[in-house]
Amino acid sequence: MSVRILLRLWASALLTVLVIIITAFFFLSDGQVFFAPRLPPGFPSIPTTSGFAAPRDNLWKDLSESEVINVLQYLHTVPNTLNLTAALNATLRDNFVQGIQLARPPKTSVQSFIHGTTKAAPPRWARVAIHHGTSDEVYWDEYLVGPLPVTSVTEIQPVKYPHRHHLDHARNLVPDALSFKKWPYSVAREVADITQDLLGSTINDGEELFGLDHDKLELSFRDPWMEDGHILRWCSFQRAGTKAEAGTLLPQGLYVKLDTTTRNPDNWKVLHWYYNGRLYNSSEEFRAAWRSPGFEKLPPNYDGAWTTIEDFSTTQEPSREKSAPIMIQPEGPRYHVDREQQYISWMGFTFYWAFAQATGITLFDVRFRDEQIMYELGLQEALAQYAGNDPMQGAVAYLDSFFGMGRAMFELVPGYDCPAYAEFLDTIIYDAERSQRRHKTICLFEYTADYPLQRHTTSFYVTVSRNTYLVLRTTAVVGNYDYTVDYIFYLDGSIEVKVRASGYIQGAYYIPGESEKYGYRVHDQFASSMHDHVINFKADLDVLGTSNTLMKVDVEPWTESFPWSEGEALPTMGLRRTPIEIECGLNWTANSQSMYIVLDTESTNAWGEMRGYRIMPGSGMGTPAHLTFNGSRTLGKAASWALEDLWVTRQKDDEERSASPRNAFNTDSPMVDFSHYLDGENIEQQDLVIWFNLGNHHVPHSGDIPNTLQHTSASSIIFSPFNFHDRDASRASSQGVRLELPVRNRDTLSSALINYFGHHHQKGLLLREVSR
Amino acid sequence: MSVRILLRLWASALLTVLVIIITAFFFLSDGQVFFAPRLPPGFPSIPTTSGFAAPRDNLWKDLSESEVINVLQYLHTVPNTLNLTAALNATLRDNFVQGIQLARPPKTSVQSFIHGTTKAAPPRWARVAIHHGTSDEVYWDEYLVGPLPVTSVTEIQPVKYPHRHHLDHARNLVPDALSFKKWPYSVAREVADITQDLLGSTINDGEELFGLDHDKLELSFRDPWMEDGHILRWCSFQRAGTKAEAGTLLPQGLYVKLDTTTRNPDNWKVLHWYYNGRLYNSSEEFRAAWRSPGFEKLPPNYDGAWTTIEDFSTTQEPSREKSAPIMIQPEGPRYHVDREQQYISWMGFTFYWAFAQATGITLFDVRFRDEQIMYELGLQEALAQYAGNDPMQGAVAYLDSFFGMGRAMFELVPGYDCPAYAEFLDTIIYDAERSQRRHKTICLFEYTADYPLQRHTTSFYVTVSRNTYLVLRTTAVVGNYDYTVDYIFYLDGSIEVKVRASGYIQGAYYIPGESEKYGYRVHDQFASSMHDHVINFKADLDVLGTSNTLMKVDVEPWTESFPWSEGEALPTMGLRRTPIEIECGLNWTANSQSMYIVLDTESTNAWGEMRGYRIMPGSGMGTPAHLTFNGSRTLGKAASWALEDLWVTRQKDDEERSASPRNAFNTDSPMVDFSHYLDGENIEQQDLVIWFNLGNHHVPHSGDIPNTLQHTSASSIIFSPFNFHDRDASRASSQGVRLELPVRNRDTLSSALINYFGHHHQKGLLLREVSR
Repeated sequence: MSVRILLRLWASALLTVLVIIITAFFFLSDGQVFFAPRLPPGFPSIPTTSGFAAPRDNLWKDLSESEVINVLQYLHTVPNTLNLTAALNATLRDNFVQGIQLARPPKTSVQSFIHGTTKAAPPRWARVAIHHGTSDEVYWDEYLVGPLPVTSVTEIQPVKYPHRHHLDHARNLVPDALSFKKWPYSVAREVADITQDLLGSTINDGEELFGLDHDKLELSFRDPWMEDGHILRWCSFQRAGTKAEAGTLLPQGLYVKLDTTTRNPDNWKVLHWYYNGRLYNSSEEFRAAWRSPGFEKLPPNYDGAWTTIEDFSTTQEPSREKSAPIMIQPEGPRYHVDREQQYISWMGFTFYWAFAQATGITLFDVRFRDEQIMYELGLQEALAQYAGNDPMQGAVAYLDSFFGMGRAMFELVPGYDCPAYAEFLDTIIYDAERSQRRHKTICLFEYTADYPLQRHTTSFYVTVSRNTYLVLRTTAVVGNYDYTVDYIFYLDGSIEVKVRASGYIQGAYYIPGESEKYGYRVHDQFASSMHDHVINFKADLDVLGTSNTLMKVDVEPWTESFPWSEGEALPTMGLRRTPIEIECGLNWTANSQSMYIVLDTESTNAWGEMRGYRIMPGSGMGTPAHLTFNGSRTLGKAASWALEDLWVTRQKDDEERSASPRNAFNTDSPMVDFSHYLDGENIEQQDLVIWFNLGNHHVPHSGDIPNTLQHTSASSIIFSPFNFHDRDASRASSQGVRLELPVRNRDTLSSALINYFGHHHQKGLLLREVSR
Repeated sequence: MSVRILLRLWASALLTVLVIIITAFFFLSDGQVFFAPRLPPGFPSIPTTSGFAAPRDNLWKDLSESEVINVLQYLHTVPNTLNLTAALNATLRDNFVQGIQLARPPKTSVQSFIHGTTKAAPPRWARVAIHHGTSDEVYWDEYLVGPLPVTSVTEIQPVKYPHRHHLDHARNLVPDALSFKKWPYSVAREVADITQDLLGSTINDGEELFGLDHDKLELSFRDPWMEDGHILRWCSFQRAGTKAEAGTLLPQGLYVKLDTTTRNPDNWKVLHWYYNGRLYNSSEEFRAAWRSPGFEKLPPNYDGAWTTIEDFSTTQEPSREKSAPIMIQPEGPRYHVDREQQYISWMGFTFYWAFAQATGITLFDVRFRDEQIMYELGLQEALAQYAGNDPMQGAVAYLDSFFGMGRAMFELVPGYDCPAYAEFLDTIIYDAERSQRRHKTICLFEYTADYPLQRHTTSFYVTVSRNTYLVLRTTAVVGNYDYTVDYIFYLDGSIEVKVRASGYIQGAYYIPGESEKYGYRVHDQFASSMHDHVINFKADLDVLGTSNTLMKVDVEPWTESFPWSEGEALPTMGLRRTPIEIECGLNWTANSQSMYIVLDTESTNAWGEMRGYRIMPGSGMGTPAHLTFNGSRTLGKAASWALEDLWVTRQKDDEERSASPRNAFNTDSPMVDFSHYLDGENIEQQDLVIWFNLGNHHVPHSGDIPNTLQHTSASSIIFSPFNFHDRDASRASSQGVRLELPVRNRDTLSSALINYFGHHHQKGLLLREVSR
C-alpha cells in the first residue's frame, strides 16, 4: 500500500500548498471557499424525502457550513493565543486551521433529549485541528470551541485526550510534505546512472505526485518513525505504472534509508542503501559496490497489460455478452429518509447517521420498534500490518484513519457498487477553511437475498418468507485498497457490519528463497506480501437502556447422570453462563463454543428470559481475525485494540474512540492509547461498549492479480436479538407465502400461479382449502 | 425433531402397508407402479435444453425406469436365494425389494472414459436393498446386480461394506412399524385418566399418523437402541398441534420407556414412566404415585396461535404491503443444461449431477475451463445431537440419511425458495418397486450479489465488476427441519457449499432450574434444547488430476533479524508450509491462522507456484462447527466423522461414503465406520478425499419461535483457486464498467448514464478520454 505514502504526502501537502492543489480539487467539486477572503453562499438545501421527518434533531451530524463559518470567524476575530493565519494565505511556517468538525456531544449529556424528557438539545461544539508551524517542532493541536452558535459565553479549550493529564501536541513527522518528497527524489536522481543500469529507468522528474511516465521510477515511503530524536524512513523504488496506477505491484528491489530530522533539508542524510540482501552504509559505498566486478544485478519488475483490470476479450465466455440477472425495485423504496436530519426508518428500525472525516459513517440511537439497541455503531480505525524480507514490506503498517476513512469515501457507481435504484447521498468535508461536497459517497438500498428468511414444510402446508434487508454502504479508497463498509439491517432486528476489501495488493520485489516466507510469487519479479487487516469498530450497545451485562455462554461438554439414566453417567453437553465482571478482551473460541450476549439482567421477555443481543461472526469468511503478532515498532502503542477479537469496557464520555487519526505519527505516545481503557472496572449492569475487530489474514496469490476479489475478502459481525422479543419479530414484516397442499402429504406441492412481485400472506392465497 | 420419529415410523410403515399409504402418495405424483402386476408406460422424456449436450454420458445418473424394470425382472425371474415376494403383495413377513438405485461406478473404472481415452462407458450396476422379513430377526440386505442391461453375464453379489470382511445384515430395530406405533398408543390409552388429569387430554385415537385433533396427544419416539439383546425406546407425550403441525413445540413432560424386543407385541413391556423428575418402574407404580396425596402436577403445554408461522396483521409495518426488490433475468439464462445427461455449463464451469435418495444431489467431474477440480462433491450424512434433562432431549440424535436427504427433497416454491425465473428440475425415487416423480425438487439460477466482485479506484479511473454467481439448490424436509443445500459457483472458479436450516425447533418440556442448563424458556411450558448440527460432505478433489497433496500453511508469529534491521530482531510473521503426510482429521485453527490448500506439487503456474484450491470457511456464520461431545450411546460408532472439522484420506473405491443410511440402527457396528478410513496411509501426491463438516451449535431462543431463521443459520465452505491460474480468472467473464475521471483526481466521479442492464466493458464507455 505504498501509494498510501504518496497519499500521506498529499495529505500533508494539502497543509502547505493549498493554493496549488486545491485549485484542481475545486474544479471537480461543488466546493466553496467560505472564509477570508470571501464568504461563500450556502449550498442549496436538499429537500427532505416525501415529507418524512426525524422525531428530533440529529445531535451527531457534522457541523453545517454556517456553523463552520461561525467558528472560523470566532477563531480569527476573537483574541486568542493561537496566532492564526487564514489558511488560504498560510505557509507551513504559520499556524492555521487544518480541520474542523463537530465535537460529538458526550453521551451522558444527550440522554434526556433523545428520550424526550427535555426538548432542549445539548449545546454543539466544534473540534478544531491547528497546524502549528511557527516553531521548530511542527505539530497539531486540537481545540474545542463552543457552545455554538458563537455568543459571549463561547470559549476555546484544548482537547483533553483520555487518560492523559496535560495538553498533548500531536507530533507531525512530515512537517513539510513537498520537501519530504523533493529531497528523496533528488537523492534518487543522484543515483540515476545506477538505477538506469539496475532498473532500466530513472526517477520521475516531474513535480507531479503521480508521474506521467509509467516506466519511470517513483519512491514509496514507509511511515517515518522517531528513534533517538531522529526522524527516520525507508523508501522503496517502484515503477510508476501509471497506465493502471499499479505502483504497488511494481517494487524494484532497491531501497534507501533517510534521516529527515529537523525542518531544514540541509540537515538531512542518506543513511543506507539496500539491494539484493546487502545493506550499504552510504551512497558512496553503494556506488562502489555497484562498480565493483561481480556485482549481481537483479531483473527489474516491469509494468504491462498484466496490471490492468479490464479484460476486453470476450471470446472465452460468449455468455458474458448477455445481461446477468439484476435486482429491480418495482414499487419504489420502502424506507424513509430525512436527508436533512440524516435519519432513516425501515421496517421498525430507526437510526441517525453522522459523518466524520477520520471514520466515515457512524450510526446513532439505533432502535427497533422504538426499543433501544445501540447508542453508537461505527468504525474507529483500519489497520494493515505487513511482513516481508525487505525494509519496506518487513516493517510497514498503516493506520488509515490518518488518511481519513471518511475523507477517502469515494463516489459510488450506480448499478455496480450499489443497485441503480439505490438512494445516493453526499458528504461534505471541511479542509483548511474550505468545504468540499463529495457526491454519492453513501448509498442506501433494500435488497432481496437469493434465499428465503425462513421456510417450513409440514404435511399439509408450506410457508416461505423472503429475506429482504437494508444496506447502508460506503467505500473508502485508501491508496491501493478500497474498503467497503456495509451496515445491514434484517427484518428480525439483526444488524450486520461487514467490511470488504478490494484493490491492488501491495507486494514485494521477488527474491527467490526469501519471498516464499511471506507470500507467493505472482509475477516475474513480484511476490505477494502477507498482511493482517484489522478494522476496529465501536458498538455502544444500549439494550433497552444503559444497564447491560455481557454474558458469555459456553457450550460445554460434560457428563451427567439423570433419574432416567438409572445412575449411568452420560456424556452430554450444557450451557455455562458467565457474566463478564471486569473490562477485558475476548476472542472467538475454538469450535465456536462460546456465545457473547449483551443483555439487561433486569429486563425479561414474556418467558422470563433476559432480553439481549447476541454478537457473533456474520456472513464474512469464517471468523474475523486479529493481529498475528504483537510488538512491532511501527505500530508501537497505537493499536492495542488489534490484539484480540473484541473488548468490553464501561462507557466513559472521554473514552469516545479507540484511536486517533494522529496516533500514526505518535505511536510511542499515542493521543489515544486503547490499553488504558482496560482499567479493571466492574461492568455488570453498566453502560457497556463493545469494541470489535473485523479483518482477515490476507496471503495474496495469483488470483489477487491484478485486483483482490470481494467474494472471499469479506469479514463480518452480526448483532442479533437473543430472547429480545417474545418470538421472531420478522413475522410482522416479512413478505411470504403459505401454500396449502392439495391433500395432507409432504411430498408434493401443486404448482401455483405465483405473482413474482407478490406478497400474498395477506391475500390468503390458498391453493386448495383443506376441509378438516 | 420428534416428528422425525413419526417419519421414521412412516418410512418403516411404507415397507409394510404399501397398499394403503402409497395410494395416497400416488394421488399426488406422476408415480407409476412398474413391476408386477402390470408394467407402466414410461414418463414423457424431458427435452434437452436448446440442443445443448453433455460431451459424454453421465455415469453417475441414477437408474432409469427401464433399468429398474430390467433389474426387478431379473430378480424376480432368475433363480436366486432371495425368496422375494413382489412388493405390492408383500407383508412384513416376506422378503421384498425395498429400494433400488445405481451402484455408482468405482472411480478408478471411469478415468479413461471421462478423459476420453476410451469411448466405452464402464458397466452400470444396480444396488438393491432387500427387506428380509421371513426370519425372526428382521434386517436389510444389500446386493449389487449387474452389469446392466441384464444379459447372461449379469449376476447378483452381496454388497461389501468397507473394512468388513463378511456379509453384514443391516439390523432393523423397527421391524413392524404399525405395531410399533399401535402398541405404545394402547399403552398411552391405558393411562388416559392420568393424561386427562395431568395433560388435559388423551392420546389420539385415530389410526392416522397425524391425528386430526390438535389438542390430543401423540407419542414421539427416540430412536430405539439395543442393550443386552433388548430393543429399548423412550417415548414422549406431545400435543399433536396439527394446526401448524407443531408437535415438536408441544412436549408435555411425560415419558414412557418401552421394551419392544422380538416381533411379537405380546412380549413387549412398559419399563418406566418419567414425570417431573421422578422415574417410576411400572405403570402401577406411576398410577399409585399419581393417586397419592401431594402428587405435584405440572401445567401442560398448549397449542395456539404462537405456533403458526404467518402473521396476517399488517398494522405494524405498512411498508410490508409494497413490493420488496426482486431479481429479474432480463435476457434469459446464461447457463446451459443438458437435462437428459444432467450436465451443466456456466461461465467456464462444467459438471454432472446425480441424485440419490439417501444423500440428495452430488456433483461429478467438476471442471473449470476444462481443467479438473473435483471428481465428486456431495452430502454424506446430516447429524443432529441434542442435550436436555429429560429422557427424550437428553439422549436423542438423528442421522438423517436414514430418512433420505434426497428422498426428503421437497418441491421448491418459485419466487420464494428460488427466483421465479429459476430452472426447476425433478427427481425420481424408486421405492418398493414403484417410482415417484418429485416435481421441482432442484432449482438452478444465476443471481447477482448486492456487492461487486471487485472494485478499484485510482486517481484517474474506477473499475467495478458485478458478482454474478450460479446456484444449484435443493431443500430436504426432514421432520421438523428443512435443510437447504446450495452449490454455488463463482466467476473466478470458486465453489461454495452452503447449508441452511429452517423449520420448527425440537424442544423440551420446561422444568424450572433444569431446562436452563440446556437452553432457554421460549413459551409457557416450553424450553429450547441446545443441539449440534453436523453435516458431512465428501469433496474428492482432483486438482489437475489425482496426484495431490494437502498443504497446511500456517500464519505464524516469529522474530527475525534482517540485514536492514542492523542486527535487531524484529517481531514479525511468516508462512510455515507443512504437507500433510498421513491421513488425519484437522480443525479450523484459532484466529484463522491456518490455510488448507489441496495442490499438485508437480504442476506450477507461470510463476512457479504450485497450483491448488484452498479450502476455507465461506459465507456462513463464522466457522462451521463439529460435535461438542463424543461418546453418546445414541451415536455409538456411527458418526466419528463429526468429531473434527475436516479429514483427509486417500481415495479408495470401497471407501465411497463416510456413512450408510443403515448406520442409524447399527450404531454399535455400523455398516460404514468412518474411523476405519484413517488407517495411517501416506497421502502425499496421492488421490485425496476431503471429508468436511458444515453445521453449527444451535442454542435456540425466542427468535426461533415459531421458526428458525436462515440468515443466521448458514454454514459454509468455499473451495477457491489458489495460485491455480496465472491471474484472476474472473477477468474474462465478469461484467463490469470502467469509468474515466474527467481529470486526474480520485475525489469525484462524474455522473454517468449507466444502463442498468449494462455490460459496458466491451463498449468502452469512457466518460471522458484523458489526454496525456
